[in-house]
Amino acid sequence: MKMTKEIPQLLKGFRDYLPQQQLARRKILGKISEVFERFGFAPIDTPVLEYYELLGGKYGDEGEQLMYKFTDQGDRKVAMRYDLTVPLARVMASYPDLPKPFKRYQMALVWRADKPQKGRYRELMQCDVDVVGSNSINADVEVIAAMNAAYKSLEVGNVEVKFNDRKLVDEALGQLQVNRDDVPKFMRTLDKLDKMGEEKVIASLTEQGFAADILKEYAGVMDDLAKNYVVQMQQLLSGLGVERMKFDKYLMRGLDYYTGLVFEFTLVEKPEFGSVGGGGRYDKLIGSITGVDMPAVGGSIGLDRLFAALEEMGVISPQTAAEVIVFNLDKSLTPDYLNMVKNLRDAGLDAEFYYDPVKLDKQFKYAEAKNMQVAVIYGTEEAKTRKVNIKNLREKQQRVVDLDNLISEVKSMLW
Amino acid sequence: MKMTKEIPQLLKGFRDYLPQQQLARRKILGKISEVFERFGFAPIDTPVLEYYELLGGKYGDEGEQLMYKFTDQGDRKVAMRYDLTVPLARVMASYPDLPKPFKRYQMALVWRADKPQKGRYRELMQCDVDVVGSNSINADVEVIAAMNAAYKSLEVGNVEVKFNDRKLVDEALGQLQVNRDDVPKFMRTLDKLDKMGEEKVIASLTEQGFAADILKEYAGVMDDLAKNYVVQMQQLLSGLGVERMKFDKYLMRGLDYYTGLVFEFTLVEKPEFGSVGGGGRYDKLIGSITGVDMPAVGGSIGLDRLFAALEEMGVISPQTAAEVIVFNLDKSLTPDYLNMVKNLRDAGLDAEFYYDPVKLDKQFKYAEAKNMQVAVIYGTEEAKTRKVNIKNLREKQQRVVDLDNLISEVKSMLW
Repeated sequence: MKMTKEIPQLLKGFRDYLPQQQLARRKILGKISEVFERFGFAPIDTPVLEYYELLGGKYGDEGEQLMYKFTDQGDRKVAMRYDLTVPLARVMASYPDLPKPFKRYQMALVWRADKPQKGRYRELMQCDVDVVGSNSINADVEVIAAMNAAYKSLEVGNVEVKFNDRKLVDEALGQLQVNRDDVPKFMRTLDKLDKMGEEKVIASLTEQGFAADILKEYAGVMDDLAKNYVVQMQQLLSGLGVERMKFDKYLMRGLDYYTGLVFEFTLVEKPEFGSVGGGGRYDKLIGSITGVDMPAVGGSIGLDRLFAALEEMGVISPQTAAEVIVFNLDKSLTPDYLNMVKNLRDAGLDAEFYYDPVKLDKQFKYAEAKNMQVAVIYGTEEAKTRKVNIKNLREKQQRVVDLDNLISEVKSMLW
Repeated sequence: MKMTKEIPQLLKGFRDYLPQQQLARRKILGKISEVFERFGFAPIDTPVLEYYELLGGKYGDEGEQLMYKFTDQGDRKVAMRYDLTVPLARVMASYPDLPKPFKRYQMALVWRADKPQKGRYRELMQCDVDVVGSNSINADVEVIAAMNAAYKSLEVGNVEVKFNDRKLVDEALGQLQVNRDDVPKFMRTLDKLDKMGEEKVIASLTEQGFAADILKEYAGVMDDLAKNYVVQMQQLLSGLGVERMKFDKYLMRGLDYYTGLVFEFTLVEKPEFGSVGGGGRYDKLIGSITGVDMPAVGGSIGLDRLFAALEEMGVISPQTAAEVIVFNLDKSLTPDYLNMVKNLRDAGLDAEFYYDPVKLDKQFKYAEAKNMQVAVIYGTEEAKTRKVNIKNLREKQQRVVDLDNLISEVKSMLW
């Protein structure tokens, strides 16, 4: 064997998905799609590249730094998709005839040149679900319910959704005579309550010029203001099948653009994974991009963090593409092997045959490496009597069956 | 309403997939995946960005011009995926323990800054299927059979595969005393036979210094040489369920890297779409990239051309995400609407409810625009008697049913 050349490896912060991971990932995406469609959301897709002019300046200073951008062959400044919301705004402006409310989901990669860390990638899969063109609270709860149902379909255990409403926060701060311009500062500081703890948050608020008892006052006013809202949300969410929900007056979410509902999902049994998704209402964002105001509410499931959680929970089990392998014992029996594998496939089974009549030992190792379930063993001896040996590779049992019954016998071994 | 700002549009050569197209595309990709997995191929995925060093120089001058490349934030020269074969070579080098033969498929976008034309995009979806690590003819036929089955699953009508073997071409030209170095020239010229016609090809060959009767001689020698090979291929392909195949001694395929089998699929009823997929054996390519020779055979379905063909054949019909819509007649009935929609979804139906109690007319228009099948109409009158009106929106029939029987009644209307 020649020496391996030094060939370029993966870029830092990127990853390959080998069969086991990719099968699991496809399965997860498939389940999420199915749920979103059951809720009446339809998929769209948009290009990976957009004019930089569209994406630039939409994601703050950080976004500007982390966005992949370059000049293309036609001297256009272009950028790689950074999230799925700005492209959605462009779609809404480009196709004014889309029926509204426009309920769409999009599962697509986005790129952010973040510092690579364990479990943090520069190529991320996002699953976004949004309703554009309705300001109804029904749209709010449906986005939450659809995401809730998506998590439930994934066997991640129980999820809990925390929610709050920025309009209420605004109103509470108004009652507390907080200057309108200071509201975002207040929200951003409170957003860190989980990480910093109450004491530090109070210190930080005081330092920024808020009253010393602002947090206590805020809590009192909010409890009062939110009563009816909380009851209504609970009724609507329960009505749509959401089981665990909690009003959280301290929940703010980082992004500046939310105008009403904000929400966040956590795994009840794995709280250490933090938020596995969230979103909110953003009634001004599309207008700020397109010039035409359009109310909107949506959420995003961060697939990579969820995938990591599922891997740790052992929910992602070894998977294989093929269930059955037909071993190759004798080249002259090739027509029989082809016939078997064809019949297995026609019966809906994932099946392959080994291409070369190499030592059986090697073929068993291949089947094991691919985690296959059943091997079909058929050599010149078996051929004489039209018998075939089938072996359950997991339970190491085998039996000899009539060639004519191969399909039903393999099926009975699989299930 | 404010004026729409001039917001950046789609980049030239790129396209959005709105719900109808994206649903159709997802369905096609899903069917192709299913077939490939039934044949024992497992999916992988690789990053959109790779080191330029890996991709550069692999695709000839044209590739160099058309490749999207730039310098990233960390001063690395990177490039966007240009095909799925070079990344596969990197994967083979990065994970030497992958069980071999490694049978993988990958469905992923590639980018080529080609001149935009009707039906030609700069962002392309490729569906590649390859076997790495086997030089068996069984691997050759299985790649063809898997692609053949994929087309069959898509209702594109009959497909035909033409095949040839470059080893035979080499041998034939050797017998005709053609200089080894002139073989690629001969192949590239013959590759244009379909477009240029025989006369021009002969003229071009003569001009390049080949004997005047080279084509005739070649045909004779090839017919002789290929006999056994053709019979064997036909037997193997038939064994795996391929129905229409044709040996084509003039088929060459453009790429220089093929070393044995070359093949191409066309639509029997839509020959004007040209090749909708093809591939071949490339035993030297992986070694030339990684330094370790590894035999490989594979093919690629060009989804965009196929999608265009399917659109033209009317196989891509209007689709919708939701099958059933519950209309909103009265805000006070919201709990009932939620309950209905939840039960419909729990029964496996794609269902949505209209968020706002606007005029029924508007709700009907929405349902029609989304091509929904059944509307559930339930107002205060119906509520009194626990009856509900269900309407088949396609056949414009309606009937009044008991609220308790809603699910079964809607189902009977859908099927």
